[in-house]
Amino acid sequence: MLNISNIVDRIREIMEDETLDQLKDELNSYHEADLADIFQELKPEERLQCFKLLDLEKAADLIEYLPAQIQVELLGEIDEDIASRILTKMPHDAAADVLGDMEDDESETYLDKLPHKFSEEVRELLTYNEDTAGGIMNPIVLTVNSDMSVQDVLNHIRIKAEQDNMELYYVYVVDKQNHLLGVVSLRKLLTSPINQKVEDIMISDIVKLHVDDYSDYIIDEFMKYQYNALPVVDLYNRLKGMITWDDVHDLFEEETTEEIYQSSGISTEVVDEDEIISGNIFNAIRARTPWLFITLLGEFVAVNVAHYFDHTLEALPIVAIFMPLLAGLGGNIGTQSITLMVRGLSTGQITLSSAFHHMMREMFVGFCIGGFFGLLVTLVTWGWQHNVELGVIVGVAMAINMTMATVIGTFTPFALKSIKVDPAVASGPVIATTIDVLGLAIYFSLVSTFLVKVL
Amino acid sequence: MLNISNIVDRIREIMEDETLDQLKDELNSYHEADLADIFQELKPEERLQCFKLLDLEKAADLIEYLPAQIQVELLGEIDEDIASRILTKMPHDAAADVLGDMEDDESETYLDKLPHKFSEEVRELLTYNEDTAGGIMNPIVLTVNSDMSVQDVLNHIRIKAEQDNMELYYVYVVDKQNHLLGVVSLRKLLTSPINQKVEDIMISDIVKLHVDDYSDYIIDEFMKYQYNALPVVDLYNRLKGMITWDDVHDLFEEETTEEIYQSSGISTEVVDEDEIISGNIFNAIRARTPWLFITLLGEFVAVNVAHYFDHTLEALPIVAIFMPLLAGLGGNIGTQSITLMVRGLSTGQITLSSAFHHMMREMFVGFCIGGFFGLLVTLVTWGWQHNVELGVIVGVAMAINMTMATVIGTFTPFALKSIKVDPAVASGPVIATTIDVLGLAIYFSLVSTFLVKVL
Repeated sequence: MLNISNIVDRIREIMEDETLDQLKDELNSYHEADLADIFQELKPEERLQCFKLLDLEKAADLIEYLPAQIQVELLGEIDEDIASRILTKMPHDAAADVLGDMEDDESETYLDKLPHKFSEEVRELLTYNEDTAGGIMNPIVLTVNSDMSVQDVLNHIRIKAEQDNMELYYVYVVDKQNHLLGVVSLRKLLTSPINQKVEDIMISDIVKLHVDDYSDYIIDEFMKYQYNALPVVDLYNRLKGMITWDDVHDLFEEETTEEIYQSSGISTEVVDEDEIISGNIFNAIRARTPWLFITLLGEFVAVNVAHYFDHTLEALPIVAIFMPLLAGLGGNIGTQSITLMVRGLSTGQITLSSAFHHMMREMFVGFCIGGFFGLLVTLVTWGWQHNVELGVIVGVAMAINMTMATVIGTFTPFALKSIKVDPAVASGPVIATTIDVLGLAIYFSLVSTFLVKVL
Repeated sequence: MLNISNIVDRIREIMEDETLDQLKDELNSYHEADLADIFQELKPEERLQCFKLLDLEKAADLIEYLPAQIQVELLGEIDEDIASRILTKMPHDAAADVLGDMEDDESETYLDKLPHKFSEEVRELLTYNEDTAGGIMNPIVLTVNSDMSVQDVLNHIRIKAEQDNMELYYVYVVDKQNHLLGVVSLRKLLTSPINQKVEDIMISDIVKLHVDDYSDYIIDEFMKYQYNALPVVDLYNRLKGMITWDDVHDLFEEETTEEIYQSSGISTEVVDEDEIISGNIFNAIRARTPWLFITLLGEFVAVNVAHYFDHTLEALPIVAIFMPLLAGLGGNIGTQSITLMVRGLSTGQITLSSAFHHMMREMFVGFCIGGFFGLLVTLVTWGWQHNVELGVIVGVAMAINMTMATVIGTFTPFALKSIKVDPAVASGPVIATTIDVLGLAIYFSLVSTFLVKVL
């Protein structure tokens, strides 16, 4: 891997020396993925200066690898004609992504400057929801007819793929109305006799996507079948485009981020997940407040539970100091259970049909760990406070609390999933609070029943 | 998507009717990815019966999609000769994975039955650590010499790719000693004049992996450059194999699971992450206990902090009931900050160089949300307990606690990263406990300074 910060330092030196020819050579020699890393470390004015030195092809390749915000920044700062020429060199889906991130009037300016055919196709992409197959796909696909021979197809590829700067994984077989009939892999094409007909070597049981399929479904299909690319069709089975694994890769990373955010109560429903770390700070606050607020309500219930036992607290204030211990460990082991279930449900390692098995298993885990920790706490408290009754009560509360936490942590994701609510969305903070409330109720009940009476 | 449970029901009916020809036709007609879903729902004896009905090719394709445990189960139950023939039909890397999951003497039995060349190559794969490029790669790669023409290469592909059941993404150019010189994409091959020399169209600035590279590095390289496949070389730049994106996909999912597990204090260092949900239950306990134990120690510190203020608690027991409220919200907002930082550092959206910026930003977020929640808590407590001083103290403690929690939650991942400890491993439980301890200290200090004196 390159040492990006060394390279950035050297680029700054060359810029200061104003030896622009050298800078131009150096910049154009990097892989576009490395250039993207370098550009992200540069200051905006340095970025613009470097961008202007890139060849058109390199600039187009680079744009695809940059975050949306820098894409728009760079294209907005350079000459509109050059920006349009760069856009034309990009794959249609990438160009549509860039234009989709701009203000409407700004993207219109560019669309008007693009070649007619290109801008028509990009406009069509922009009509789809950006989270559906239609908004993600590349409309430029290599298609052939079923009565062509392998040799015909190879000739066709030679002309078309070069001309349209086409991604090439499979060749799709369509009829005259562009209905999808079959698919042939390049491997099959290259290993079949050259005068064989396409219809004899194509696969017609095709895994395909529909333009309105949502990104989570698209990810599932790619994960399951592990193809490099899948065709996208409309309602009438007409081929509209294809989605390649690198598109899905970005979707997958985004979905993982959302899953992780949601598990700690950061809402990605109203605020785009990119915004939360680096966007407008009030959006960040908006994404974080809802679940905190629900925690606040839940913890007020916990406060009321404790308040209900205030005679116990007055009689024996020492019991209060064990509250954080119980809440902390119950919360932790419960979170472990939630995490395992939510992740297992999301990867498919766990299914609804095995819910009961997992609840029993987790309960046993909770009981073992809780029992062990309860014993430990009993001994430590006894030794420290010289009060065996207090030690036993705290230990028993600990064991019950931890076992209960695993059961709640396991049950809730299954319950949410079975009523078709995404378990990742609602689980974390709510369950933690529930465990707090129930844990306190159990502890204070034990204390007021056994301990305060004993005294 | 198929409705797997309907299909499983139908398969069971056909099995009961003993119309095995029909069952054989039905099973062989499914895509291997669908078959894998179906097989996972079947009972072991049903699974075996169905497996025996599959064609050899289909069986080999299916084995690749099944979890390790079922792979070993099925191959162990069928005739050893048939099992060997199935293994021979699999890609080398997949066969090595299956054999690597068996007991040593069992895998030796199979290796002895495999064709000599195949078993030699699989044996070599088994010598590599399974988490490195050497253990992940497929050793069968299509190689050509630099002085071949495009036509020669196409002819070569026609023979070799068919014969060795080869994955085909790129053609690798090597010299006589198998040193890697360049790479040519199929697209380039298909669009170049047929009498052009390979050395004129190959790319020689190659992104490549080394046999000893670890999986996290491999994932990073694939994510960054977005190639379908990368070549793997040894210390002397000799081509040993290639890794394709579907291998990386599995690695990526595993790494994400580990990241998510670690964030809730489930250790994946000693226990394989597959084991935790469904393996030996004592392994599951072992994976979960270490961080719980550290939480226990931390919470004992919290208990001691509360105990230090027991005169305060005796003077004013009501203050104890607000402890869960403070701990709950501090913990939650702190966890949000940790999650954002750990995920940002892991995806590269956040770098060490912007640590200060993010700490300031999070502190501001914590201050805003904490201030708002503090005000809310003040008003509610005042109204409920008719005690304005208590309300103000709880509210101020809340605001300080939440702000502090964001700062700790932001600072710790950066600190760990800068001393080269993976922030995902150590963050969650330790930070939550630290926030508990400091939060209590702040709260009781405020209470004993301002409130108990006032009374």
